Amino acid sequence: MKQSMMFIPTLKNAPKDAEAMSHKLLVRSGLVKQVAAGIYSYLPLGYKVIKIIENIVREELDALGCSELLLPALQTSDLWKESGRWDDYGPELMRLKDRKDRDFCLGPTHEEVITFVARDYLNSYKKLPVALYQIQTKFRDEMRPRFALMRGREFSMKDLYSFHSNDECLNEWYELVWEAYKKIFNRCGLEVKVVDSDTGQIGGKEAHEFMVMSEVGEDTISYCNDCDYGSNTEFSNLAERDKCPKCGGTISIAKGIEVGNIFKLGTKYSEPMKATFTDKDGKEKPMIMGCYGLGVSRTLMAVVEQNNDELGIVWPEELKPFKYHIICFDVKNKDQLDVANHIYSELRKQSECLFDDRIERGIIKLKDSDLIGIPIRITVGRDIKDGLVEVTERKTGTSNKVKITDLQAFCSSLSKKKKK
Amino acid sequence: MKQSMMFIPTLKNAPKDAEAMSHKLLVRSGLVKQVAAGIYSYLPLGYKVIKIIENIVREELDALGCSELLLPALQTSDLWKESGRWDDYGPELMRLKDRKDRDFCLGPTHEEVITFVARDYLNSYKKLPVALYQIQTKFRDEMRPRFALMRGREFSMKDLYSFHSNDECLNEWYELVWEAYKKIFNRCGLEVKVVDSDTGQIGGKEAHEFMVMSEVGEDTISYCNDCDYGSNTEFSNLAERDKCPKCGGTISIAKGIEVGNIFKLGTKYSEPMKATFTDKDGKEKPMIMGCYGLGVSRTLMAVVEQNNDELGIVWPEELKPFKYHIICFDVKNKDQLDVANHIYSELRKQSECLFDDRIERGIIKLKDSDLIGIPIRITVGRDIKDGLVEVTERKTGTSNKVKITDLQAFCSSLSKKKKK
Repeated sequence: MKQSMMFIPTLKNAPKDAEAMSHKLLVRSGLVKQVAAGIYSYLPLGYKVIKIIENIVREELDALGCSELLLPALQTSDLWKESGRWDDYGPELMRLKDRKDRDFCLGPTHEEVITFVARDYLNSYKKLPVALYQIQTKFRDEMRPRFALMRGREFSMKDLYSFHSNDECLNEWYELVWEAYKKIFNRCGLEVKVVDSDTGQIGGKEAHEFMVMSEVGEDTISYCNDCDYGSNTEFSNLAERDKCPKCGGTISIAKGIEVGNIFKLGTKYSEPMKATFTDKDGKEKPMIMGCYGLGVSRTLMAVVEQNNDELGIVWPEELKPFKYHIICFDVKNKDQLDVANHIYSELRKQSECLFDDRIERGIIKLKDSDLIGIPIRITVGRDIKDGLVEVTERKTGTSNKVKITDLQAFCSSLSKKKKK
Repeated sequence: MKQSMMFIPTLKNAPKDAEAMSHKLLVRSGLVKQVAAGIYSYLPLGYKVIKIIENIVREELDALGCSELLLPALQTSDLWKESGRWDDYGPELMRLKDRKDRDFCLGPTHEEVITFVARDYLNSYKKLPVALYQIQTKFRDEMRPRFALMRGREFSMKDLYSFHSNDECLNEWYELVWEAYKKIFNRCGLEVKVVDSDTGQIGGKEAHEFMVMSEVGEDTISYCNDCDYGSNTEFSNLAERDKCPKCGGTISIAKGIEVGNIFKLGTKYSEPMKATFTDKDGKEKPMIMGCYGLGVSRTLMAVVEQNNDELGIVWPEELKPFKYHIICFDVKNKDQLDVANHIYSELRKQSECLFDDRIERGIIKLKDSDLIGIPIRITVGRDIKDGLVEVTERKTGTSNKVKITDLQAFCSSLSKKKKK
C-alpha cells in the first residue's frame, strides 16, 4: 500500500484532553479520529488492525463450531418489553421513534433480538446446542465517555449467545469460550486475568470478566501472579485476597480494563420471552442460555496501552498492520525512488508492505514510522550510492546497513529469528 | 461446517406478504429473518454470502488504491447543518437526541462525516487524490419498506468518497470506479446496465446508476442490448430511446433494481464545509469530490432474484457459501454416518463443506439442499452398501452414482469442467 494514498493523518501533538497513553497514541498515529464525544472514526490504519482482531475472534470461535450472523442495531421496544428491560435499562439506552411514532432503541446488547430470532426454530432438544455470534457496532449513551475507545458511545463488540437444553451443556460451553477468550487475547499480545463479576444489566446466574492490567483501568482487582485467577474485590474487603482458590500464588493489586465478559444467563431471557424447546421427556422447557461479550475496539485500545515506548506504538506480532515499512527518504531523488519502488514491488509479493512515497521531509517520515510501529523499517536514502539501505527493527531499535542485493535474505533471517 | 450447529432455519412456506421471488427465497432458505418492518437479521448462511460480496468489493477497490475505514453511524446535527442537509433531508433521516438533549441522526450516507474527517489533513494538492471507503450499516426510515432487502430501513452499503485537486482527476477516478463496479457485479454473477441518473438527495453535477434488470425493479429504464449503456427515461419521452450514444445496438425496456450509484459531487460538500486545500499556484480551493455507493445487502437480493429455479437458489460460482453439501441421509444409521463423516473430513481439507448431520428426515434434507443451492451435493444413503454415493450438480440437476473410492477424483473433474 502506498502511504500517499492511505490517509494516515499523524499528529505531532495529542489532543489536550487525552490522558491515557493509548488515547494519545491512537490519535497521534492516525488510527482514529474523534467525531463527537465518545464517537470515533476508525481511519485506515486503525481499521486494518480492527479487522485483524476481528479475524482472530472469528478463527477461535469458528473452531468451537460457533456461527456468525448479523443482527440489526435498530430494535423495537416490543422485544425489550417482553424481557422487561425497556423499563429497567437506564439512560445509557439510546431511544428513538420512527416516522410512524413507534419506539425503537439502538442495541447496547442483543439478548432480546437473538432470543426472538432463535425461539421459533430451536424448538427441540435435537437442535441444541447452538452458538451464534456477531461482530457489530453497539450504542451506549455513556454519561462520561473516556479514554477514546475505552468507554465510547458507539463501539465495536463481538457478542456470542449460546442455547442449551441443560445446565451441563451450558457449563461445558462456558469453559470452551473461556479458553477461546484466553487464546484470542493471547494472540492479540494481551495478558489477561479472569475475575468473578456481578451480572449487572445483562443478568443471569454467574459471570466473569477478562481484565487487562493497566493504570488506566477502571476497576480495582486483586489477582494471582501464578495463574489467571483474579477477583473484583474492593480494597475494603481485601481480607479475601489471600483466599485464591486455584493456586497458592502471590497476590497483586492493580487496575483492570475489562476487555471481555461471559455470563451464564440461564433462563433470564428465555422464560419471559417464551423461548422454549421440547426436551427428551416430551416436556416444554425454556432454553438455557449463555452470553459472551468481547470488546473489539476496546481490545485495540488495551493493546496500544500495553504495547508502546517513548517513540510510539510497538505492535504485537499478530496485530501488525504491515510487516515492512519502506521509506523513500527523498522521493524527489529519482535514484532513491527507483530503488524504493523496486524493493516495494519485490517485498510485497511475500508480505504486506506500507511504502512511504509521500512528498514529505525524510526526518518526518522516520518519526511517523516510529509512531505507527510497523515491525521492520527499510530506509532508502543516500546510502544507495554504496548499494546500501538501512533495516531497523522497531521493537529493539537495532539498525543494520544491508546491501540491496542481500535485502531479501536479510529480511528472511529477521523473520526466522522472530519465530524462535 | 456441521449443519446441526449452523442455524439455517429453512421454511416450507414463504411469508404471506412476500411478493418478490428473492424475498420468498431469502426467508425460506434461512438466509435472513425479519425483525421489524424493513429491518432484517442476516442469519449465518446469508451473512456468509454477504461477507463474500464484501470481500469482492474490497478486492476491486483496494486494487485501485482505495483505503477502507469505518465512520460512525451516529452523526451530530452540527455537521449536517454545515452542509445544509439537516433541514433539507426528509423524514427518511432517523433523528434522535442523546442524554444531554443534543441532536443526532443515524447516517443514511456519510458525505458530511468523511468531509469532516478529511478536511484538516488533506490541506495540500500534494496529498491528493485520496479515495476512502467503508462497508457499513445505513439507516433510512423508508415510508414503504419493500421486498425484504430491496428497500430496507437498516441495510448494508459500501460507500466510497474520493478527493481531488481538479476535475480531470475526478473524471479519471469516476471512470476507474465505474469499471471496478462492472467487475464487482460481474463477479457476483449479475448483469448490469449503467444509466444516467439525477443527483437527488446526494447532490452534485453528474451521476449514474448501476441497474440489474428484474421484474421487481422499481425504475423503468431503456437500455442497449449490445453495450452497457442505459437511460432512466420515463415512458413519456421514449423518443429519446433510440439516441443511444455509445453504439447503435437495439434497445429494450425493462424494470431495474439499482445496486450502485456514482456521483460527481464537485464542491457541493467541500465548499459549505470549508474543506479546502492549497493548490500548486498557492491558492486555497475547495476539494473536488466524488462519491460512489454500492448496496451490499441489495446486491444479495438481486443475486437471489436473478439466480434461482423452481427448487430454490442457484448460487453464482463466486458467491457460493460452500462448495460441497454432504448429506447424511439417515444419521441414525451408523454406517452412513461413518462414511459421511469420512467424506466430510477429507473434502474439507480442500474446500468449504456444509455437512448435513441433522437428526431430520432424509427427504427434508434433500429439499433443503435444493433450496439453499450449494453447487455440488454428495448424498450418503443406502447405496453405501455397494460402495456408492450420489453426486448431484445443483445447476443442472445431473446426478451420478460414484464409487466412494473415486469421489475425490470425480469432484476434481467437476471443478475442472466448471472452470472451462
